[in-house]
Amino acid sequence: MAEVSVNRAWRLRRRPVGAVVPGDLELVSESAAPLRDGQALVRTLVLSVEAASRIWMGHQRAFMPPVGLGEVMRGVGVGEVVESRREDMKVGDIVAGFVGWQEFCCADDQRLEAPLSVLPSPLPAPVSAFVGILGHTAITAYLGVDLLQPRPGQTVVVSAAAGGVGSIAGQLAKLRGARVVGIAGGPAKCRHVVDDLGFDACVDRKDPAWPARLDAALPDGVDLDFENAGGPILDHLLMRLNLNATILLCGEVTQYNDTGERTAWHGLVNIDQIHMQRATMRGIIVTDHLDRWPEALGALGQLWASGQLTYDETVVPGLDQAPTALTSLLAGHTTGKLIITVAEPTTIPGHPLTTG
Amino acid sequence: MAEVSVNRAWRLRRRPVGAVVPGDLELVSESAAPLRDGQALVRTLVLSVEAASRIWMGHQRAFMPPVGLGEVMRGVGVGEVVESRREDMKVGDIVAGFVGWQEFCCADDQRLEAPLSVLPSPLPAPVSAFVGILGHTAITAYLGVDLLQPRPGQTVVVSAAAGGVGSIAGQLAKLRGARVVGIAGGPAKCRHVVDDLGFDACVDRKDPAWPARLDAALPDGVDLDFENAGGPILDHLLMRLNLNATILLCGEVTQYNDTGERTAWHGLVNIDQIHMQRATMRGIIVTDHLDRWPEALGALGQLWASGQLTYDETVVPGLDQAPTALTSLLAGHTTGKLIITVAEPTTIPGHPLTTG
Repeated sequence: MAEVSVNRAWRLRRRPVGAVVPGDLELVSESAAPLRDGQALVRTLVLSVEAASRIWMGHQRAFMPPVGLGEVMRGVGVGEVVESRREDMKVGDIVAGFVGWQEFCCADDQRLEAPLSVLPSPLPAPVSAFVGILGHTAITAYLGVDLLQPRPGQTVVVSAAAGGVGSIAGQLAKLRGARVVGIAGGPAKCRHVVDDLGFDACVDRKDPAWPARLDAALPDGVDLDFENAGGPILDHLLMRLNLNATILLCGEVTQYNDTGERTAWHGLVNIDQIHMQRATMRGIIVTDHLDRWPEALGALGQLWASGQLTYDETVVPGLDQAPTALTSLLAGHTTGKLIITVAEPTTIPGHPLTTG
Repeated sequence: MAEVSVNRAWRLRRRPVGAVVPGDLELVSESAAPLRDGQALVRTLVLSVEAASRIWMGHQRAFMPPVGLGEVMRGVGVGEVVESRREDMKVGDIVAGFVGWQEFCCADDQRLEAPLSVLPSPLPAPVSAFVGILGHTAITAYLGVDLLQPRPGQTVVVSAAAGGVGSIAGQLAKLRGARVVGIAGGPAKCRHVVDDLGFDACVDRKDPAWPARLDAALPDGVDLDFENAGGPILDHLLMRLNLNATILLCGEVTQYNDTGERTAWHGLVNIDQIHMQRATMRGIIVTDHLDRWPEALGALGQLWASGQLTYDETVVPGLDQAPTALTSLLAGHTTGKLIITVAEPTTIPGHPLTTG
């Protein structure tokens, strides 16, 4: 049984204004309290860094309350139980959920909201998959696409198409027979989205001619929009909506680094098109649908195992890199699911657990 | 049988930029072509002028194509058949539908899209009611409220609350037991909305303190928004949405006088709240639901006859006043349904048809 007395944790010191800068978060070393009955100590193996991380640092009205100043930064990850006084968790168990941006967390069985869940043993995939292709990221894509119900003959747009959610969403829409047009930042990402992920087209949002290129890629308009970005491109897409189109808001990453006053963002001027085209705009929050996670995981696992889904990761080693990695993600410099590796798992004989 | 050789009609000469100005439309006197078989000549009795009239003059992508330059301005109204070579329309019949901004229109039985419909005889209400409380205006409110399904304990916001659609929508939401907060322009309208229409509260959008007053009127947030206005107040309301709120876009009247470039409108910056609050935004176009008009008319007629619905009109006499009346409506100077009286109906013995 491990003896852990020191934890390193990223604590929120100040709400970022615009992009996260040094000092907004502080990496502190602090002593870990001894376990009480009903608690387990979990060593973080991998962390998921995502656009929502930035939301949680701000004070805007969001789908979860902001992280309090002084608190450990919220984050989803996978960990290994290294010490346990809980009957339902034993040393060596691999668990997933909100572990926070820290090396160790205390899994208390009295924490009823968003408890850590024990993953199957032997683990059927690398640890990092459980925040990616077999975790909340891909489940978001799966449930979002299921809500959109793309059909052959329809055109689906996916923004942030090279990102963790977008890359999976576009592939799932393709599997349902729709034409899928991605939007991504830079020619390399766009090539990746078409060549490796199989989208029908991908428009480079950094190309100043993106409006014309997007129109050219959408000769039949937009039936479904899996929206991860928001901003001016969404406003443009509103003018390309077909009758009865659906816009699924899954993320608005262009806005998350806005300053507190949000004046940097011009705003959607074409919202009347939702009316004119009898369209529907709605949002998805993956944790609203926990009852469907098993179904989603089953489907995703099967598609991935059979090679029908390509899953990409950007892996950044070291807890100390978490804020920088987030900044990189929000600047569009990462591809696929962004993973921070925090520790190597204890080797379990016969089941090679890797994080890459 | 009438002998009509001259028609007066408002023809669109130029697409307005911003507010309609003289010269955008021209009132022309022109000879009426003689009827062919299958045609009837309809004398316009009343015209409905509405925010959508302004949409149809522009070139924006809307729910109907723009009125072509040189064409008679599109408009819904009620008319009387004064000459007929159609078997299904006889002289004296009262008809409703797209008669246009003109004294006479030709009802051709080959016009399959949006044909004029013959109203019941004897007419159960004044002529003007058939574009108002017993016409497309109130049906829009009815179907919109039915879609929103307000319940006791919920808060419903209705913008343009003193207008033709808003005034009915708010009353219908009240009849379903919800708390209803209106938004209207000026203290007199707000008093009318509360005192005469029975809304729980009404906020004056012209009061510079409207954000604080709106917040004060919405202590429990917004569950349902029957949106007729759009613009900055909608953006503010987005920050007050409750979980699973619905925004029904029925009109965006604040935008219709925008210039061609639409730069005057800042745009919605809080659209992410649709995501965060798992809200839904969708539109309603009343002509999509013609199958439900009989049901709506039955319900509205019963509620009106029993005194449970108050119906207001602003009546402006004379076809020549139509453009000015529209400008007045868009400036927020009218209350209730805006009606233009064009001609007095032929008196039908025993059935007093009035336009007021």
